[in-house]
Amino acid sequence: MENFADTVDNLRQRIDAELIEAVPQIQPESLYEPIRYFVGIGGKRLRPILLLLSAQTVNGNIKSAISAAVAIELLHNFTLVHDDIMDRDDLRRGHDTVHKKWDEPVAILAGDGLIGLAYRQLMKLPSQYLIPVCRLFTEGVVEVCEGQAFDKEFETCSNVTLDEYFRMIGKKTGRLITMSTEIGAILGGGTEEEINLLSRYGSTIGTAFQIQDDLLDIAASEEVIGKTFGSDVKAGKKTFMMVKALQLASDDQRSKIAEILSSAKISPEMILEIKHIFQEAQIFDQAKHEIHELFEKANNILDEFPHPERAQGLRDFSEMLLNRKY
Amino acid sequence: MENFADTVDNLRQRIDAELIEAVPQIQPESLYEPIRYFVGIGGKRLRPILLLLSAQTVNGNIKSAISAAVAIELLHNFTLVHDDIMDRDDLRRGHDTVHKKWDEPVAILAGDGLIGLAYRQLMKLPSQYLIPVCRLFTEGVVEVCEGQAFDKEFETCSNVTLDEYFRMIGKKTGRLITMSTEIGAILGGGTEEEINLLSRYGSTIGTAFQIQDDLLDIAASEEVIGKTFGSDVKAGKKTFMMVKALQLASDDQRSKIAEILSSAKISPEMILEIKHIFQEAQIFDQAKHEIHELFEKANNILDEFPHPERAQGLRDFSEMLLNRKY
Repeated sequence: MENFADTVDNLRQRIDAELIEAVPQIQPESLYEPIRYFVGIGGKRLRPILLLLSAQTVNGNIKSAISAAVAIELLHNFTLVHDDIMDRDDLRRGHDTVHKKWDEPVAILAGDGLIGLAYRQLMKLPSQYLIPVCRLFTEGVVEVCEGQAFDKEFETCSNVTLDEYFRMIGKKTGRLITMSTEIGAILGGGTEEEINLLSRYGSTIGTAFQIQDDLLDIAASEEVIGKTFGSDVKAGKKTFMMVKALQLASDDQRSKIAEILSSAKISPEMILEIKHIFQEAQIFDQAKHEIHELFEKANNILDEFPHPERAQGLRDFSEMLLNRKY
Repeated sequence: MENFADTVDNLRQRIDAELIEAVPQIQPESLYEPIRYFVGIGGKRLRPILLLLSAQTVNGNIKSAISAAVAIELLHNFTLVHDDIMDRDDLRRGHDTVHKKWDEPVAILAGDGLIGLAYRQLMKLPSQYLIPVCRLFTEGVVEVCEGQAFDKEFETCSNVTLDEYFRMIGKKTGRLITMSTEIGAILGGGTEEEINLLSRYGSTIGTAFQIQDDLLDIAASEEVIGKTFGSDVKAGKKTFMMVKALQLASDDQRSKIAEILSSAKISPEMILEIKHIFQEAQIFDQAKHEIHELFEKANNILDEFPHPERAQGLRDFSEMLLNRKY
């Protein structure tokens, strides 16, 4: 029997091939070359893999779900291309971002084009599923914009609560992940109960995934994550750690953080200083604890399945996420 | 009987009311306030009006087509918000553009959000029409991005042919207008023949509309058009006149144009100089002639209708377009 790493590799290859097919080989070059570049520089393809595993979990097949999987990945790529402009990030997946390699107009348009190409993939779905899936997808597009808007608003806001943080990441990151499990469940022919369980599973691992992302941005080195180290601190992002620190750290620590966040330019030394405060105030431990709790909760949801043995793929998926280094 | 000006006013009021309803009254403010601002500063609402008139032409009613009309206008607004960033235009409809009033990240996100809200309107359509309309709409999103990419490519290209110009405007401007007539025809319950005729009609007036737009940008004053005078020349846009001039003007005139287009900053005097060349080389006359021919062709298409008397609204619409001053 195939082990999970092989399963993931096979799915990823299938998705990569379909993604390249989804980008037309026609003019204008200034639209399709950047799109081809961006979908071609890799990416973990977690969302489409999750969608396909969800379809399998409800006993559906991959073939009927593949174009939705490709659509989700294209939509995810749209958010990355536009977010990188807004956040002025120059590095993504270890390569230049689109606005860095070309320019901003090209990157704006590449992102817009990716939305169109994503919907084009959805239009290939069997007609009995097309409307509900298209509806979910559309609500996802709106919500992911809302999440990004909250994220940007929070950059200049020093009193973000944990509830506000969770609402923001639920929209910005969680929505696309939950959409992946829900759409997979629908296309796999899941029952209402199964769709509901997979929705809760997606929402739970989505939250865990974003807290991990926050953690990796400051805990890992640039080389490992393939994007700029400490970019969240530099941009004034209210990550899980930052929100916790602004609540729980000592007065001295908080005023130090505030001082750094208000400086015109945040140096690597300043980022290390903040990292040190997070360590001292045991914020990293709290983040890790939260992540572990969420993964446990996610596994408990899978146990509720009518045929829990079918959810082994998702159990392995959670495990893979939990152990990721970037 | 209601005259056409009143018909248009009534449709516009109806569309304006639905547009405001389409923008959620919720947080995040940084997403929905700019969207509400932009759809609220007016606009001629030509595309949704055209969609509704098309539905009426095939004996359909407005109620069944209104949410598609709103969707088309939201999509059009998305293109304006993003194009204004790319073209660095500060003025639109006599008001500050979104990126000027707020900033670029806000404008990028407002445009993205408008796409999501547009699809959300489509999802309200009766299910028997939803799939074909959504398919057309999606192809329109892709094509409008292609058109904008060609338009940007042509800015730095001095040998654009008339064929290339027509292909570009067919995608950038024509596609949304043709989509309006086609979707109106579908939702009005038109026959295949009627849908086909309205598609040809839309494509023809769409081309005429863009040549007019090119003309107005340099012929009208800033006050009248509510956007920057001569902005096309400043941006190096290959308008109908510019393409014609680069083909037909004398060597002296052409090298004068090339000199101006290659200057670091194009002054109002330089724009007037180009305007003068267009006049001398009779380029304006050619543009006006082309526009008139296209409107005549459009009316001939309406004559082919099984019940040509029902197309009176569209005949009046063409007339209104032909006489527009901005």
